[in-house]
Amino acid sequence: MNKLERIDYPLKQQPNGDYLWLNLFRINSGNIGPHVHIQANVHGAELQGNVVIHELIDWFINNPFQGSITFVPFANPSAVNQKSGMYTQGRYNPVSGKNWNRNYIDLVNLDEGKSNFKLEKFVRDNISKEYCEVVENFKSALFNICDNIEKNPTDRAQHNEDGNFNLLLQKVASPADIVLDLHTGPVATHYIYTLDKQKDSAQYFKFPHYLIIPAAFDGAMDEASFMPWVQLSEEFKKQGSDLENNFESYTIELGSEERISFSEGRTDALRILNYLGHKKVHQESIIDLPSVDVKTCLLKDYRSYYAPRGGLYEFCKEPGESFKKGDVLAKSLNYKPVKNEESFKKAIEEVLAFEDGVVINHSTSASLAGGHPLYQVMENISSET
Amino acid sequence: MNKLERIDYPLKQQPNGDYLWLNLFRINSGNIGPHVHIQANVHGAELQGNVVIHELIDWFINNPFQGSITFVPFANPSAVNQKSGMYTQGRYNPVSGKNWNRNYIDLVNLDEGKSNFKLEKFVRDNISKEYCEVVENFKSALFNICDNIEKNPTDRAQHNEDGNFNLLLQKVASPADIVLDLHTGPVATHYIYTLDKQKDSAQYFKFPHYLIIPAAFDGAMDEASFMPWVQLSEEFKKQGSDLENNFESYTIELGSEERISFSEGRTDALRILNYLGHKKVHQESIIDLPSVDVKTCLLKDYRSYYAPRGGLYEFCKEPGESFKKGDVLAKSLNYKPVKNEESFKKAIEEVLAFEDGVVINHSTSASLAGGHPLYQVMENISSET
Amino acid sequence: MNKLERIDYPLKQQPNGDYLWLNLFRINSGNIGPHVHIQANVHGAELQGNVVIHELIDWFINNPFQGSITFVPFANPSAVNQKSGMYTQGRYNPVSGKNWNRNYIDLVNLDEGKSNFKLEKFVRDNISKEYCEVVENFKSALFNICDNIEKNPTDRAQHNEDGNFNLLLQKVASPADIVLDLHTGPVATHYIYTLDKQKDSAQYFKFPHYLIIPAAFDGAMDEASFMPWVQLSEEFKKQGSDLENNFESYTIELGSEERISFSEGRTDALRILNYLGHKKVHQESIIDLPSVDVKTCLLKDYRSYYAPRGGLYEFCKEPGESFKKGDVLAKSLNYKPVKNEESFKKAIEEVLAFEDGVVINHSTSASLAGGHPLYQVMENISSET
Amino acid sequence: MNKLERIDYPLKQQPNGDYLWLNLFRINSGNIGPHVHIQANVHGAELQGNVVIHELIDWFINNPFQGSITFVPFANPSAVNQKSGMYTQGRYNPVSGKNWNRNYIDLVNLDEGKSNFKLEKFVRDNISKEYCEVVENFKSALFNICDNIEKNPTDRAQHNEDGNFNLLLQKVASPADIVLDLHTGPVATHYIYTLDKQKDSAQYFKFPHYLIIPAAFDGAMDEASFMPWVQLSEEFKKQGSDLENNFESYTIELGSEERISFSEGRTDALRILNYLGHKKVHQESIIDLPSVDVKTCLLKDYRSYYAPRGGLYEFCKEPGESFKKGDVLAKSLNYKPVKNEESFKKAIEEVLAFEDGVVINHSTSASLAGGHPLYQVMENISSET
Repeated sequence: MNKLERIDYPLKQQPNGDYLWLNLFRINSGNIGPHVHIQANVHGAELQGNVVIHELIDWFINNPFQGSITFVPFANPSAVNQKSGMYTQGRYNPVSGKNWNRNYIDLVNLDEGKSNFKLEKFVRDNISKEYCEVVENFKSALFNICDNIEKNPTDRAQHNEDGNFNLLLQKVASPADIVLDLHTGPVATHYIYTLDKQKDSAQYFKFPHYLIIPAAFDGAMDEASFMPWVQLSEEFKKQGSDLENNFESYTIELGSEERISFSEGRTDALRILNYLGHKKVHQESIIDLPSVDVKTCLLKDYRSYYAPRGGLYEFCKEPGESFKKGDVLAKSLNYKPVKNEESFKKAIEEVLAFEDGVVINHSTSASLAGGHPLYQVMENISSET
Repeated sequence: MNKLERIDYPLKQQPNGDYLWLNLFRINSGNIGPHVHIQANVHGAELQGNVVIHELIDWFINNPFQGSITFVPFANPSAVNQKSGMYTQGRYNPVSGKNWNRNYIDLVNLDEGKSNFKLEKFVRDNISKEYCEVVENFKSALFNICDNIEKNPTDRAQHNEDGNFNLLLQKVASPADIVLDLHTGPVATHYIYTLDKQKDSAQYFKFPHYLIIPAAFDGAMDEASFMPWVQLSEEFKKQGSDLENNFESYTIELGSEERISFSEGRTDALRILNYLGHKKVHQESIIDLPSVDVKTCLLKDYRSYYAPRGGLYEFCKEPGESFKKGDVLAKSLNYKPVKNEESFKKAIEEVLAFEDGVVINHSTSASLAGGHPLYQVMENISSET
Repeated sequence: MNKLERIDYPLKQQPNGDYLWLNLFRINSGNIGPHVHIQANVHGAELQGNVVIHELIDWFINNPFQGSITFVPFANPSAVNQKSGMYTQGRYNPVSGKNWNRNYIDLVNLDEGKSNFKLEKFVRDNISKEYCEVVENFKSALFNICDNIEKNPTDRAQHNEDGNFNLLLQKVASPADIVLDLHTGPVATHYIYTLDKQKDSAQYFKFPHYLIIPAAFDGAMDEASFMPWVQLSEEFKKQGSDLENNFESYTIELGSEERISFSEGRTDALRILNYLGHKKVHQESIIDLPSVDVKTCLLKDYRSYYAPRGGLYEFCKEPGESFKKGDVLAKSLNYKPVKNEESFKKAIEEVLAFEDGVVINHSTSASLAGGHPLYQVMENISSET
Repeated sequence: MNKLERIDYPLKQQPNGDYLWLNLFRINSGNIGPHVHIQANVHGAELQGNVVIHELIDWFINNPFQGSITFVPFANPSAVNQKSGMYTQGRYNPVSGKNWNRNYIDLVNLDEGKSNFKLEKFVRDNISKEYCEVVENFKSALFNICDNIEKNPTDRAQHNEDGNFNLLLQKVASPADIVLDLHTGPVATHYIYTLDKQKDSAQYFKFPHYLIIPAAFDGAMDEASFMPWVQLSEEFKKQGSDLENNFESYTIELGSEERISFSEGRTDALRILNYLGHKKVHQESIIDLPSVDVKTCLLKDYRSYYAPRGGLYEFCKEPGESFKKGDVLAKSLNYKPVKNEESFKKAIEEVLAFEDGVVINHSTSASLAGGHPLYQVMENISSET
C-alpha cells in the first residue's frame, strides 16, 4: 500500500473571512519515473473528473508504479460552489466574466522583467548537458518563473483572483512530465484535445473522439503546460541541437456536466491507466477496456451550430451520433409566426446539417435565443480503429 | 377545420422599452360546452407544456368538440428568457425572489373594499337561480374581481411585477370550467397534483403518480382556480342549498425541465384529450394510451430528502423508481475527511432510504451543499390499476 | 477590560467540502443583568451592521456593564459571499429563492409533536412562580424547542438549508432579553421596525424613522423573537394572571446596502448604546448623539411605488426627504414612444406623488422594468421631537 | 427644426419569440459635413450615456449643423434588461461570459476569404484619387466587409449572439468620421480613453482625466473604429504616399453605473458639443462648461488595486481624489483573526498607496473576496490646464 499525502493551500478568502482551500493529494512510488499531474473541475459544473480521480487514487494506493503523481480534485472551489437556482454557475468567474480555463500564463514568453527568465540563455547554459539534467533544470526554471510572478504581482496590493487561481495550478504542475486536465462538455460525449505530435500516444486513452489542436497559446491549461516544452525544443533546434520533447498534456472531456457516475468513473480511470502504462508510469495490464471506433478531426473542423431563431429546441441527434448533410439536427418551437390556423404550421422549423459530421455536444437547455449555442460537431472526420 | 384566434397582451415593458407579450390562442367549437384554460411554462425552465399545447392546438383545429378552449403557451416570458450561464434561471423572479407560481390571489376571500365582492351576498342573490345561470354569474363575478384589482392597485404608481403577472393569468382564466397548469419537475417523472374530490376524474389522465392536496390556498394557480368554487359550494350549503361544483383544476408535471420532446408531447396530449373526453369537451375516442400502474399519496407523504453533507451526489434511483427502507438512494463524494490512505474510504458516503417510497424527482445538479435538495419521494403509497 | 470569547459553529458544508462558519462573540460582564443578542448581515448586501458590531465590541470590552451580550457579525456567510457581477446577490437564497429573513419559526405555535412544548401547560406549571424564574424557565423552554426541532427534522436525511440557517440563529438567541437584527435598506435612510408597545423604548435609539408593526408572525427574526413573549403574556392573562413582558426585539435599518462607513458606524453604535443604557445594560452616559426629528407611521402606511413603465429612472427625492402630493418623485427615460422630432418629448415621463410622504428608500438601480420597485415611502406620518 | 428619423433593427429573438430591437435615431443637417456615430449602454449597467444622447438629440433637432449624426441609445437591450436581484448583470453576456465590448472585429486584418477585401489592393486602387473620394471609398469598403461577414457566417446555421451584436454596431458605424462610445465606470469619475494622436483634439471634451491608449486592437469599439483608418494611413505610407487620417473615436466614461442624472447629462452633452464644434460639426458657441484640471497618464500607468484579503472595505478616497504614496486608500473589516480581546484589533487592516496617484474608480460593493477589484488609479500623471 502506497502512502497518500495531502497538501493544503489556502486559495481564496471569501468576504466573510472563511477560506476556500485547494487540497492536493500526492502519491510517491519511491521509484524513479515520471511525475504526473491530474486536475479536475476547473469549470464549476464539470464534476465527473473528481470521480475519476477517486478511482485513480484508489488504484495508485494499491498498485506498484514508477515516479509520482499529484491529484487536484475540486481544483476550483469558487466555481463548484457558485449556484444560480439549482444549477452551478461555473464556466466563468461570476465577478469578472473570465473563463476559468483561459487565464493561464505563457510562462516562457513573458517579459524577462516579470519572469527573470530568458529561454535563449537557458538553452545556451544547458545545451551540452545530459537530457535528464536539462529536463530537471527546465522544471525548476518553470517553478521559479511561477514563484517570481507570485512574489512580484503587476497588480497593486495583490494578484487579481483570476490570475492568482490559474498561477497556483501552474506552479503546482511545474514539475510534471504529464498533465491531464479533466473537464466535461455540456451534454456531451467523451473527447480529447491533443496536439498532433501527441496523437499516437493519445490513442492509448481508447477515447472515441479526438480534436487535433495547433501548438499555440490561448490561455488554457493544456496549452500553458505543453507550450514551454515546445518552445524549449524549438530553441534547442535554433541553437543547433536536438532535444526530444517527451512532455505531454491533454484536456480530457468526460461526458456531460452537472452529473457524476461511479461506474463510468471506473471505466474512465482504466482508460487513463492504459495511457499511463504506455507512458511507463506503471507496468500493470489494464483489461476490460471497451473497444471504440476512433474519429479525429482538426480544431478548424470542430464547428458550432447556433440557434437560427429564438424558441425551444428538440435535439434530434445524440452526442456521439453521426449525421449526413441535410439531416434534421433539431426542431424548434416558437408561436410568434402563428396568427391563425393557416399559419399554425410555422410554429415548427427544422435545423438541417450543413455538412456530414458527428455530434460532440449540445446545449444543456432547450430554451434558446437566436444566436445561442445549439451543437458542436466534428466535420471532415478521419476514422481509425 | 376550426378557426384559431390569437389575442395579444403586453405583459411587461423591459428597461430598454421593448415589451414582452402574452400571446393567447383560442379555439371556439361553435357548440355549447365547457371552457377549458390550458397554460404552460409559468416557471422558466419548465418547457414541455409548450410542446403539449402545440399538439393540442393541432388536434382542436382538426376535430369537432364542444365549448371553447384557451391556450397560453410561454405564459411567463420574463422567466423563460432569463439565462444564467446556459441554464434558465426561472423558478422565481430574479429581482424579488418570489416563486412565479405563488402570487395568485384568493379572489373570494379578498377584502370587499379591494374586490367589490361579497360571497355571502352573491349566494343570497343567486340561491334560487338555475345552475347554469349561477355558474355564468360566478364566472362574471370572478372576472370583475380581477378587473377591480387591476384598476385599483394597492401599490402606488402601478402593480408590482409579481402581482401583475399572476393577476393577468387569473383574469384570462376566469371564464374557465377546467384549468390545467402545465409544469415539469427538475429531473422528474410524470405526476399530477389533485384535490381528493377530483381524484376519480383525474384517473382519466392515465398518469402514473398523483399527489392529493388539501382544499387550501397557498398561492398556486390550481388552488387559486378551484378555491372560489369550493367556497361558493360551501356558502350555498351554509345558506341551506346545494350547488354541485363541477369545476376542476390541476397542476400537471410533465417530466424534466430544460428539455422538450415532440414524441412525448404527443402522448401527453393524448392523455389530456382522454381526460377532456371524460369531461365532455369532445366525443372522439382516444387510443394508443400507454397503460400505467397508478401510485397515489397525500401531500403530507410527499417528502423531501436533503443532502446530509456538501459534495457530489450520484443519484442511484431514477424518477419513477420504487425503493425500500434502507436502500441506497445516493452516494456522495467529498475529499475533506481524507487525510491519508487510511481515511481515504471516508471520501464516499451513502444516503439510505428512511422509509419505502417512490422517487418523483431529484435535483438537476450533482453538486450540492449540505441542506440542498436531493430527492422528492412519495411515501405511504396506495396503488390502483 | 472585559474578556471576549469566540464560539464557532459550522453552518454549511459547501459542495467542495469547505465549511462556512458562524463565529459568535460573547462578552460577559460578570454582573447580573439582561442578555442582549445582536446579529448583522442576514441579507448578503446589508453590510453596515458588521461595522456597528465592531464599534460595540470595542465599547463592551472597555466599559463596565450588566449582564452579557452576544454578537453575530456576518450572520449569513452564504449570502455575503454570493456574487453576481461585482454585486452581492444576497436578499434570497440563490437556490430556493427564499428570503433569508422569512424562514424563522413561530416556536410557541408549533405542533406539540414537533416542539414537545405546550404553552398552556407551561403557564399552568409556572403561574405561581417568581417573575425571574418564569423568565428563565421560558428561555430554557425556547432553547429546548429549537433543540427538539434540530434533532428531529421533518425533512429526510437532514434539514433543508433555509430552515437550518434560521433555526441556528433562533437557538443562539433563545436566552436573550433583547434582540437587535441589524439590516440596511437598498438606497435608504435610517429606520426601525418596532411593535407599538415598544414605541417609547424605541425612542432611545434616537432614530429618525419608525415603522409600527403589528404583533403578528411573518417569518422575520424580530417577530420570531417577540412573538413567544407576546403569547406567553396572553396565556398568563387567559389563565387569570399578569406577566409583565419586558422582552424587546427590533429590526434596525442602517442606511444603504453594499457599503460600509466606520464613522457612521460609531454614531450608530452610540445610538444603540443609548438604548441599551435605557434598558439598564449599562450606566455610562452616551453623549454626542445627533438630534433628530422623529417620524412614525403604521406598517399599512409604508407604501411602495412601482415603475409605471420600463425605462431609466432619475430619483428626484433622497432617502429621508419629505414630499407633497403631486411632487415629481422620479423622471423616466424611454425612447420607444419616439418616432420623430414631434414625439421626441414622449421620451421623458414624470412619476408624481399620490400623497404626502417621506422617502425611506429607493431602488439600487435606475434601470427598471414596468412593475419593478421604485420607492418605499411613509404616509400618514405622525411627527414627534 | 431638423427632422429626426428612427430606424429599427431586430437584434435578437428571445426564447419566447419576442424580439429585442435596436432603435437608431438619425438627424441629417442637409449640409455637407462629417458623419458622427454616438452609441450608449453597450454594458448593461452603464446608463448615463442614454441621458446624454437625449440632450444631444434635443440640441441637434433645434440647431443648425453640418453633416449628419446617428444615435444608438440602449445599444445592448439584452444587457440592460438582465437583472440579478435589483442590479443589472450587464458587463458580460450571461450565457457566454464574454465582455460585450470585446467582440468587435479587426475588419481590415481579416482573412481576405472572409472579408473579400485586401488593404494593399485598396490603396493601390485609390492612391491617386482625391482625399474625399478615398475616404468615401474606404467607408464603403468597411460597410461591405461587415456585409460580407454578415452574409457568410463562419458559424453554422447563424452567427453566435456575441459576434452578431458587435458586428451590427460596426456596420451601422461604418460611414462615420467620428465614433463616440458612451460608457461609465463602476463608482467612477469622468474619464476618456484616447489615442495619443487624438490627444489635442480630446482636450475639447474638457474632461478631467485622459488615458492614453496604444494604436492596437483588443476588441473594443473605439479600437475597432480607429484601427482601419490607422492601417489605411500606414499602407498609404508604405506605398509611398501620405493620407491624412482625420478619423477619431473615443470611449467616454460618464461617472458611475446604475444611475442617471439629467442635470449631469446636460453638462456632459455640452462637453461633447464643444468637441463636435472643434471638429466642425457645428458653429454654435458652447458656454457654461465647467473648467477642469486635466490629468493624463498612459494606459500602462492605469493600475488596479485588488483586495489583499476577504472582508468589507471602506473606500477612503473618492473617484477623482488625489493621493500620496503611503496614504490609507481603504480599511477592511474581517473577524476571522479575532480570537479574544487581545487579537480584536486585527479585525481592521489598512490598504496603503503603493505610489502617488488619482482614484479613477472603485468597486461597487464593499464586500470583497481576496483578489476582487478595489480601485483603478492613474499613476505617473502629467497635468495640464
